[in-house]
Order: sequence, then structure tokens, then C-alpha cells
Amino acid sequence: MTMATTNRQLLLQARPSGLCAPGDLRLAESPVGELQDGQALARVKFLSIDPTMRVWMADRDSYLPKIPLGNVMRAFGLAEITESRTPEFKKGDKVIGLVGLQEYVTINSAEARHFQKIPSMPVLPDSAFLGVLGVTGLTAYFGMTDIAKPQSGETLVVSAAAGATGSIAGQIGKIHGCRVVGIAGSDEKCKWLVEELGFDAAINYKHADWKEKLAAATPKGIDIDFENVGGEVMHAVLGRMNLHGRVVLCGLISSYAKEDPALESFSIIIVKRLRVQGFLIIDYVAKFTEGVTQLGQWKMLGKIKDRETMLEGLEKVSEAINMLFTGANTGKLIVKVS
Amino acid sequence: MTMATTNRQLLLQARPSGLCAPGDLRLAESPVGELQDGQALARVKFLSIDPTMRVWMADRDSYLPKIPLGNVMRAFGLAEITESRTPEFKKGDKVIGLVGLQEYVTINSAEARHFQKIPSMPVLPDSAFLGVLGVTGLTAYFGMTDIAKPQSGETLVVSAAAGATGSIAGQIGKIHGCRVVGIAGSDEKCKWLVEELGFDAAINYKHADWKEKLAAATPKGIDIDFENVGGEVMHAVLGRMNLHGRVVLCGLISSYAKEDPALESFSIIIVKRLRVQGFLIIDYVAKFTEGVTQLGQWKMLGKIKDRETMLEGLEKVSEAINMLFTGANTGKLIVKVS
Repeated sequence: MTMATTNRQLLLQARPSGLCAPGDLRLAESPVGELQDGQALARVKFLSIDPTMRVWMADRDSYLPKIPLGNVMRAFGLAEITESRTPEFKKGDKVIGLVGLQEYVTINSAEARHFQKIPSMPVLPDSAFLGVLGVTGLTAYFGMTDIAKPQSGETLVVSAAAGATGSIAGQIGKIHGCRVVGIAGSDEKCKWLVEELGFDAAINYKHADWKEKLAAATPKGIDIDFENVGGEVMHAVLGRMNLHGRVVLCGLISSYAKEDPALESFSIIIVKRLRVQGFLIIDYVAKFTEGVTQLGQWKMLGKIKDRETMLEGLEKVSEAINMLFTGANTGKLIVKVS
Repeated sequence: MTMATTNRQLLLQARPSGLCAPGDLRLAESPVGELQDGQALARVKFLSIDPTMRVWMADRDSYLPKIPLGNVMRAFGLAEITESRTPEFKKGDKVIGLVGLQEYVTINSAEARHFQKIPSMPVLPDSAFLGVLGVTGLTAYFGMTDIAKPQSGETLVVSAAAGATGSIAGQIGKIHGCRVVGIAGSDEKCKWLVEELGFDAAINYKHADWKEKLAAATPKGIDIDFENVGGEVMHAVLGRMNLHGRVVLCGLISSYAKEDPALESFSIIIVKRLRVQGFLIIDYVAKFTEGVTQLGQWKMLGKIKDRETMLEGLEKVSEAINMLFTGANTGKLIVKVS
């Protein structure tokens, strides 16, 4: 039987505009209910504080449904089983998962698979399973090994580099032989990145000349952007990318706490895990013959049709260019000169 | 010896703001110079009018250098050799390449490789080598086959679908067994796409309810976006993408004729042919053990270091969340609850 215990919880009371205001999360107390068959009770030890929480607080679904007002706010954390009436857990097990912002979490058997048991590691604190060995460390690991696929000698730039994910991503870049440059928001963080973590350079984006410093720190351009910030920081990094570089779009922390429709397309790319590939035909010149042959065959077979809009005379060019933007042409637009 | 001939040329006189104004391209006449050894003279027959020309007119380098004011405006086209003093060409050869906005182009031997000879095809007009068999058709071909890699049964959306590239890209999607939906700017264009080109649906984005129609036309979501437009059109399409969908970022015609810094990051993705991949750790849950094992090993070996910023007490959560956005934490941010 469950001991009569009070559970303190933080409920999502209002959706923040900008940063979280004191009243957005309301502290409430409720009794821990009687444990039923198929349930386990766990006491929350540590809560993981992640940028994505700000996304969850908004009034729209993301990769997870939005949180109804009045509900316990969603959060990742580490909890210890205090009582179990389900075979998946026994008292003393430590689990990580979406425990919520509360002191006690009741886990139903049906959702047991969403809570992972962690081993006791004598040399590591339990909280490491929320950080370097937890979701943020794993984000760095899979973002680097599965998406960025760094090659020795490449230049990697990491934004929010002193954060939980960025700091690990950069070090994984070093392990793979990359030149690693971090972008962070204080000189102290930059010092930590270079002197303790072994980054090749770190740049404080709050200094007026940070873009010049970024250029100086990436003399061969940038091959990989591990992007956690978005907005102006991302724009500056993209401007230094080498042709055919890769951008791991992991986070856009600069945009989470504001509403900016211009940034929303990038948010969708993350939420839907899209692959966006910039493309110019000039990379395919060597294969033109293959393309023309296939297109010509399709054209002969009637599998593709085309239409031309033709104007006559050199003096019509300016008008013709504008037609593209006003939508006045259909199909290929050509000016006949002679 | 070259016949004394006048060459009419369009010079880039001013850089347009918005659409091209009449004075931006100035008509000038100059004599065709005496042909030197190693040169060929070609008479321009057709000029290809492409959205990218608007990009070239701007006061910045793109994938090609910007055009100095007063120079002949860059343009792709088809020309016929009228005289040759270089072995690469003979009189009567028809070539495509960057002929420029002019009636005659002098080709130096050193740049001969940039001009491709085209065959005479009795069933096709020469101008097809600027359209369906030219750069715009090839853009559709390689964008679809090499970047999008369409699979039978997938849903493809093409923006600027009645344009030279979009109309071919959509038909290539049909050849690969896709459901193909076009977005265009007039009912007449939409009719052409469906009735003549065989698109499954076409949507006029100038109708107020076009987003609802897009949703209705893509009941299984969108797997591939062949993007030629950008801005609001792209945003609506991205909102209907399926998880792990692909975006072939081919053009952003909605942004070429205006200055909008918010759109510039997408422009860079095209110009530098970047691969941008949205990424969420929830796709890697099944591989967490692999990641934790590797991270743990690196941590033990001292190859990665981490730092925690720890606050105590549930009531500190709101403050902690804000620390992420003000940059007050270094490394993993955790709230200790018990």
C-alpha cells in the first residue's frame, strides 16, 4: 500500500510569451494516489532542463502534442522506483524518461517501455545519465556520427557550443580529427571550450567583431555546422560554409522564445526531420549527356511534354525577365534574337 | 576576315530593385571586332530567360561572380557559328552556353569547353536545347533522379509547376510512379498541368483557400518537395511534409526580386549546395545502448569531458528554463529535486 504522500507538481498555468514568467508554471500539491496493479511509483531525483521545453509550452503541437493548460509540465528526468506493482520495475531501480515537473511520478505498465533503467556506475554520478550519457549526449553522438559523418581534416563549427549537446558534439568532432570551432556567449565559456575541452578555437558571439573572428578561425571554410541556435548565428555560419557542406539542424534556441514566422520553416525542418538539399545544375555538367539522352527518349515517347513561351527581339529581354516574376509565362521562356 | 557587322548588346546599366526597370539594361551598339586566331564568332539565335538572371544582376557574388556595371549582361542561349579560326568549331555548328544578351558572341579557344555543340534533331526545334533538353530540363532531371530519388507511391509537390523546370520535374515524378501535385499561379496553368501533363492535381496559390486545397490534394502528406518558390509557398508545403521527407531546394523565385534577410539563409543553402538535415534524438531510441556505450567509453578514457550546472528544488525550474535562453548555464542544466 502506498504511503500517504504529498506530490508537489508544476502545472502549466499559462503559455509564456518570451521568457517564462513566474506565473506560467504554478506549484500545486496533490496526494500521491493509491498504487494500482500494473503501476510503479517513482521519486524524481533529477530534472533535465532542456531548450525543447520552451517549445512544448507553446500553443501548438510540435514533434509531441502540446500540453493542455493545467496539466503537469512535461520534462525529462531521472527517478528512483519507491514501490512497484508491475514486473517491469522493482524498488530501487533508477529510470530515465518523461517524468514531468513533479516529485513523484506514477508509471503505468503500458508506458514502462518509455522509461529506461540505468545501471549504477560507481565512477559516474547518476545525473550523468541526463547529460553526457543521456539524451543530450546521445543527441550529440547520433547527430555527429549518423548525420554529420565527420571526416578527419574537416572543419566543424558548433553553435551553443558550451551547452550540454554542443560541448559533446564538438569533442566528438575532435575525436574524429576535425578542426573544431565553438560559438558561445561568454569569454568564460570560450575559455572552457578551448582550454578544457580541446576545441581549436571558440568565439564569443557577443563581441562586435565575432564574424571576423569566425572567418579567421575557419581559414579553410566550414564543412559541418552542428546548429543549435539558428537566426543570425546560423546565417553567419552558413555564409562561411564550403560547397556541399552539411548542416545538422539540431536546435534553434534563438527562436524558441519568440514568434517569428520567418524562422518557422527551419523549425519545421527539425520537427519533421526533413532533408533539405540545395541544388544547382552546374554540379552536373559532366553528366549532361546522360540527362539529355534520357530526356530526349522520354520526349520522343511522349512521356514528357513541354511548352515554350517565345518573345522576339533583344529589346524584349527586360520584359521577359519580369514575366518570370509576375508569372506571365508557361513553360520555358525564350527570346528569339535572330 | 570578319564582315563589318554591328553587334547589339544589352549592358547591365543599373542593378534592379524589385522588378527590372526599363533603364537597368541599356541597349548599346558596337562593331563586331576582327576575329583573331583561336576565336570563333557565333550569331545568337535564342536567349534562355531564367530566374537566376535576376540573382546575377544583384550587387553580390552568388555561385557566379556578380556582373560589373556596364558589362554585357550574362545569359544562357543558343548560337550558330558564323566564322571560326579555332579547331573546336566550324561554321554552322550550333552551340549552347553563356552567350550573353547580345546578337553576336566571340568565343575564345580557352572558353570553348563552356560551349556545347548540339545535334540537329529533325523532330525537335533547336530551342528545345534551351528547354526540355537544356539546362532547365536537366535541372528537373538531376534534381529528381539524383536528389529527390522518387519512389513509386510517394507524393511529390512541385512549386512553380508550370515553369520550365517544374513542369518537367513533375512529369519525371509521374514516370517514377509518384502522386504529383503542382502549385502554379493561374487556373489556365493548373488546367495545363492536369489535363495535358498528367499531374494528379494542380493548385492555384492565388486562390484564398489554396492551402486547404493543398491538404485535400495530399491526403497522405508530402514526401518530396521540389521547391522553386520559397517563402510562404514553401512554408505551406513544409507544413504538410511527412517525417523524413526530402526537399530539393532548386529555386526561391519569391525572394529573388526583393531584399529579405530572413530568406537569405535559404539562398545560401542553394548557392553552396548544402545538405541541411533536421534531426531529433527520438528517432534513435532503438540505438541508445550503442550510443551510451560509446560515450561511456570515451568518458572513461578522458576523451570527452562534461560539466553540469545544478540548481536545487522544484521551484527553481522556471528560472532554470530561462537560464538556457539567457546563456547563464554551461554544460548540462539539471534541477535536483530530491
